[in-house]
Amino acid sequence: MIAKHYSKVPLERESNADKAGIRWLIAEKEGATTFSMRMIEVEAGGSSPYHSHPWEHQVYISEGEADVTMGEEQEHLETGYTAFVPPGVKHTFKNNGKETLRMICVIPLKE
Amino acid sequence: MIAKHYSKVPLERESNADKAGIRWLIAEKEGATTFSMRMIEVEAGGSSPYHSHPWEHQVYISEGEADVTMGEEQEHLETGYTAFVPPGVKHTFKNNGKETLRMICVIPLKE
Repeated sequence: MIAKHYSKVPLERESNADKAGIRWLIAEKEGATTFSMRMIEVEAGGSSPYHSHPWEHQVYISEGEADVTMGEEQEHLETGYTAFVPPGVKHTFKNNGKETLRMICVIPLKE
Repeated sequence: MIAKHYSKVPLERESNADKAGIRWLIAEKEGATTFSMRMIEVEAGGSSPYHSHPWEHQVYISEGEADVTMGEEQEHLETGYTAFVPPGVKHTFKNNGKETLRMICVIPLKE
């Protein structure tokens, strides 16, 4: 069975992000063909890259809290929130909390 | 911004499941084009349908625990586990714990 705890998947530091990294939970090597499930981790005081791309993100915050910027909008999200980042919208998730922010982030494998 | 707490999304009971329901967190109406993020909830003592289908599942257990059957394999998974259900493999998630099982389950929108 292809099943594992997220902590068993290596955390890859994001060189263009501040105190943030990514775990590729389910990707091509697990058999994924259409989309990929990753976990993004942002330490207290850090943030994900402020960027945009031509594909969507589907996010679920599993631990911690985030101050999210999408385009001109800002919102404070906590554990249990989902967020949809449309293609082409500049976005960042900043962790102003005291705990590590962890979020499931799903992206398409093919554009 | 398209963001919401999962509890704000209606829980639809699954008529072919035992004490289980689904919340469609992100789907076409939010702008999804390739895949959809849902939350599956299974009450203590319940289970998701024992079935197979020609598309994959990507799962993340956000609360509770599950006794998972996939094909001939069985495994006990807890909060923080991911699981990949390959296309065509018969599967069920049974909740033998005391708390409600909640899991993010992503499926392709197009086969």
